[in-house]
Amino acid sequence: MPAPHRTSLHLADVSIADEFWFPRRETVRTRTIPHQEARLREGGQFEALLLKPRSHDGDDRERFPIFWESDVAKWIEAASYVLASGEHPELDAAVDKAIELLAGAQQEDGYLNNYFTAVKPGKRFTDLRDAHELYCAGHLIEAGVAHYEATGKTTLLGIVRRYADLIGREFGPGGACEGGYDGHQEIELALVKLHRATGERRYLDLALLLTENRGRTPFYFDAEAERRGDTGYFGGHMSPGGVFVRSSSRDREYNQSHAPVREQTEAVGHAVRAMYQYSAMADLALELGDQGLREACERLWDDLVATKLYITGGIGADPSIEGFGEPYDLPDHTGYAETCAAIGLVFWAHRMMALTGEAKYIDVLERALYNGVLSGASADGTKYFYGNPLASDGTVERSDWFDCACCPPNLARLLTSLEQYVYVADADGLYVNLYVTGTARLAHAGQRVTVAQESDYPWDGRITLSITEAEAPLPMTLRLRLPEWADGATVSVNGAPADHRTEHGYAVLDRTWTRGDRVELTLPMAPALVRADPRVLAAHGKVAIQRGPIVHCVEEIDNAAPVPRLLIARGGELRTEHVDGRDAVIAEGLVDGPAADGLYSDKPPAAEPTAIRTVPYYAWANRGKGTMAVWIRETP
Amino acid sequence: MPAPHRTSLHLADVSIADEFWFPRRETVRTRTIPHQEARLREGGQFEALLLKPRSHDGDDRERFPIFWESDVAKWIEAASYVLASGEHPELDAAVDKAIELLAGAQQEDGYLNNYFTAVKPGKRFTDLRDAHELYCAGHLIEAGVAHYEATGKTTLLGIVRRYADLIGREFGPGGACEGGYDGHQEIELALVKLHRATGERRYLDLALLLTENRGRTPFYFDAEAERRGDTGYFGGHMSPGGVFVRSSSRDREYNQSHAPVREQTEAVGHAVRAMYQYSAMADLALELGDQGLREACERLWDDLVATKLYITGGIGADPSIEGFGEPYDLPDHTGYAETCAAIGLVFWAHRMMALTGEAKYIDVLERALYNGVLSGASADGTKYFYGNPLASDGTVERSDWFDCACCPPNLARLLTSLEQYVYVADADGLYVNLYVTGTARLAHAGQRVTVAQESDYPWDGRITLSITEAEAPLPMTLRLRLPEWADGATVSVNGAPADHRTEHGYAVLDRTWTRGDRVELTLPMAPALVRADPRVLAAHGKVAIQRGPIVHCVEEIDNAAPVPRLLIARGGELRTEHVDGRDAVIAEGLVDGPAADGLYSDKPPAAEPTAIRTVPYYAWANRGKGTMAVWIRETP
Repeated sequence: MPAPHRTSLHLADVSIADEFWFPRRETVRTRTIPHQEARLREGGQFEALLLKPRSHDGDDRERFPIFWESDVAKWIEAASYVLASGEHPELDAAVDKAIELLAGAQQEDGYLNNYFTAVKPGKRFTDLRDAHELYCAGHLIEAGVAHYEATGKTTLLGIVRRYADLIGREFGPGGACEGGYDGHQEIELALVKLHRATGERRYLDLALLLTENRGRTPFYFDAEAERRGDTGYFGGHMSPGGVFVRSSSRDREYNQSHAPVREQTEAVGHAVRAMYQYSAMADLALELGDQGLREACERLWDDLVATKLYITGGIGADPSIEGFGEPYDLPDHTGYAETCAAIGLVFWAHRMMALTGEAKYIDVLERALYNGVLSGASADGTKYFYGNPLASDGTVERSDWFDCACCPPNLARLLTSLEQYVYVADADGLYVNLYVTGTARLAHAGQRVTVAQESDYPWDGRITLSITEAEAPLPMTLRLRLPEWADGATVSVNGAPADHRTEHGYAVLDRTWTRGDRVELTLPMAPALVRADPRVLAAHGKVAIQRGPIVHCVEEIDNAAPVPRLLIARGGELRTEHVDGRDAVIAEGLVDGPAADGLYSDKPPAAEPTAIRTVPYYAWANRGKGTMAVWIRETP
Repeated sequence: MPAPHRTSLHLADVSIADEFWFPRRETVRTRTIPHQEARLREGGQFEALLLKPRSHDGDDRERFPIFWESDVAKWIEAASYVLASGEHPELDAAVDKAIELLAGAQQEDGYLNNYFTAVKPGKRFTDLRDAHELYCAGHLIEAGVAHYEATGKTTLLGIVRRYADLIGREFGPGGACEGGYDGHQEIELALVKLHRATGERRYLDLALLLTENRGRTPFYFDAEAERRGDTGYFGGHMSPGGVFVRSSSRDREYNQSHAPVREQTEAVGHAVRAMYQYSAMADLALELGDQGLREACERLWDDLVATKLYITGGIGADPSIEGFGEPYDLPDHTGYAETCAAIGLVFWAHRMMALTGEAKYIDVLERALYNGVLSGASADGTKYFYGNPLASDGTVERSDWFDCACCPPNLARLLTSLEQYVYVADADGLYVNLYVTGTARLAHAGQRVTVAQESDYPWDGRITLSITEAEAPLPMTLRLRLPEWADGATVSVNGAPADHRTEHGYAVLDRTWTRGDRVELTLPMAPALVRADPRVLAAHGKVAIQRGPIVHCVEEIDNAAPVPRLLIARGGELRTEHVDGRDAVIAEGLVDGPAADGLYSDKPPAAEPTAIRTVPYYAWANRGKGTMAVWIRETP
């Protein structure tokens, strides 16, 4: 029995017109997307689609990586969202051109991955574990759906349907890959989107099949590796502790194939793979009313949020696997926190809210979005972090591009489709999940309704929602998310305290609305010192500063000394200043004296009073290199 | 023009009879060596030597690792040092049996590596970079020399000479491996030992050839990889930052083949490989009077000691390469500090002192020996650390054994040959490098001399040296090392303040000695708080406690709370207690209150006064699991 459907509004039905997101989205449109197009051109991603098979091996094409279709696909997807919200003929033409390249690279039977067509012919679908074929297919499908929904054109949608149908045959009963699944999850959530866009049940069934095949014994990837004849000196891998790992249990956790997905209990392995898998599980749980998948999602969520989530919403602390470390293993300097993983957490959190109707998921979504996601790009939108550490020794800076360029277009596609995260509708009415100035149009009980939202969020906690369009008095439930950090929030309607209840983290307003009704929500936004569970060793004896949804950090450029030498005074005053379009918090503190001579010394440093100035974490690394930290030592 | 030769005394001419080392060496003899023999038997290392080539591939033998000869060799070497100092017929017989296995596995032409004889016939010397053949050969040679010097038997010496001669032909002009060198340095220092034991110049020449081939362009390992047909999807490796490393410059640094050894300036790459290479460079510099090699060694040393040395003498902070990180990158919890690397540092430091006559090298040797080396084994000698982190979250414990079992026998062979590190002799007289109760016999100016040393070192700084044998009044220079931490040391001879100069870190006593002369050296040993350069982030705002050569740590079992919750009071009193055969330092401090609820919280913890109790770092992890740290937060 399917759960009551909560869905995002269509992109075209939401406008974003605030001072926080609007300029950022314009930057993505005018700078990031063209910059990325140029990089894909220079990098050879487009050109690689023109390669034809050759009869001999060994030339330079060996160097073309295997997942370039995904870079192209994510760029098309981001561009499509831009096309959804306005006329951009040049961009439209550039997207069409890229789609032509993909069309040219598609094989008779629907196959579309030019590495295995041109570089390694005959090897398709023989290395599902590592070769990223279904991952690329998933991104192509997401791009095809986005392009279709934005433009109405079926050029790319037709391509990806043919490819998805081939995959359905290969992975279906009697197919060459029967029992198989992808080594980098992505296609599952894409197939759900394809199902929703086309109404074809078979894509949903394929998503479920791939999801349920995962982690079953005997392990598909083992049999597949044997068929490939993989061997090595060590017959396993040597872990840093000098221990042979002969069974591949850790390798299986890496791609979450260690157990059937319904039985998984802890967030483990590569974080992006995990997020995409969990997102698909939540989608399937919603579409199919599948209680087992829902419970697995809830268990995995609780584990992640209780033990493996950075205060920035970053996840995946361990760079060696781009993934989860042990519980509470959240180092700051060496923490990975890949931009793509935080984006994946936004995807999953959004789906969990749609599945459950609970605001706690959006609290985490917001934490990630305003902090660990947004830090992934520079203020000008053309430089990127792959990992988002919570501290820097002064050597960390954003890069122009990456050879493995997954993060920049992922960020672009998230920001250009931000509309879908602001509101969720169900049969009762509207959930307001994010506070973003703009409008939402929806049909409710057969009427067209428009809700306008206005605020200076995230800098100011006063939010106004107005019913600007309603044909007749309309009974409708309006749910306003009360963020976890907002103790003492107040709600009024038309100037009087509102009669409301709190449910699942939302202030719930059940009433009959007429045009001109105004709701005022006030969220207290005093800056606060936040401490971590002492098992988070990197934060031990330290505090972070948070104001509203914004996690702050301390950069050397604003302060009297390199950041590791600063201490915040416990109980000292915290002031907020708003300059350069963003908050700074000023805290009372101390600065340690300069270094003693030599690597080790028995001279104690002296400490002097100082004022410590912060900057939002997302905004760091925009003013040259220098030390930075989120967690700052606190005077005991 | 060779430098003046400084040499260790022969093992049989030094006795060790103190309360610190003697019982530890007995533990190695009675427990560690038999335990390791059993493990090699169970692990299959002995059995693997019986394997014969088969005509087909693909059976379980694929799983025999490639470096098992080195495990057997190190065990023989350690056992041989035991045989050097007493009659042990059972051990003697066990060693003979192992040598018989090696003899049986040696091929007609002298080749001896059963992985390439039995498992991968036809592939010998085709993967010098990764296959550890010359590494194993080096350990076999060291074992052969040790066995010969201990027992006078030439059984193993003959085997390794035949193998070394084969290697000389293969790597010599026109040989199949001309221009090649090993991917894991070890054979170079072994060949110097073989030269010294046999007097054959060709082994020294081969050591020099292999050393000088290293890092020359075109890179041998590249050509070799091409001959093997190594390819991969990525044509390079993907670094955690998502950047393709296409050139193998980082891979070359891993095994120190990035530049000719004379041009190397920074300690980089795999730490054990580095130590063995630098040790051979120092040996060759001494044997050949090679100023270029000496200067390279001094540069590499300065870099290591100024920026990459743990306070415990551990080195190689980065687990992902078992090697050096960036300067000042010395994390505590995640730091690697492999036991073998600290042992390698002892080897190198000893050779640097012999090369230069400077005590600063022995200061580092002592730091490693009493701390980061000794921590590698449990008090009972049967459990081992591979890595020696400076902090534990409570999950770290020693292991019974390792599949890659390099460290346990390495530690055994160091401790059973500790005699060679106590004294160094030259034409002028004797250097006393370590303070260890026992005797040294030497020939000086044609006379036999015996010097007896007595102390409770490392717990007590009062050391007595007596001339217990001297045929006639004897002019001789006695040099006593003044450790870097011993400010205000005093020296007296026969009860009166001694007329001495300080040179290269030694108190130099030039006089005519007669039997019964007594030298008294007093080293101040107050416990001290040590701080690190602030660029060492893991130590920032923290202190370590050191007393004499012993670096202390704080274990949860001795204290009121998990170690991360403790703070040492700056300026507080430090008391020393000697119990259970070792020091404990007691410091005044604070303990933070218990954890707030949840991963992140805005409640501040409360702090209470407490006494903080230490244990020597080498002795940690002998009383169950619990948190531990060397670097403890300090009140500002």
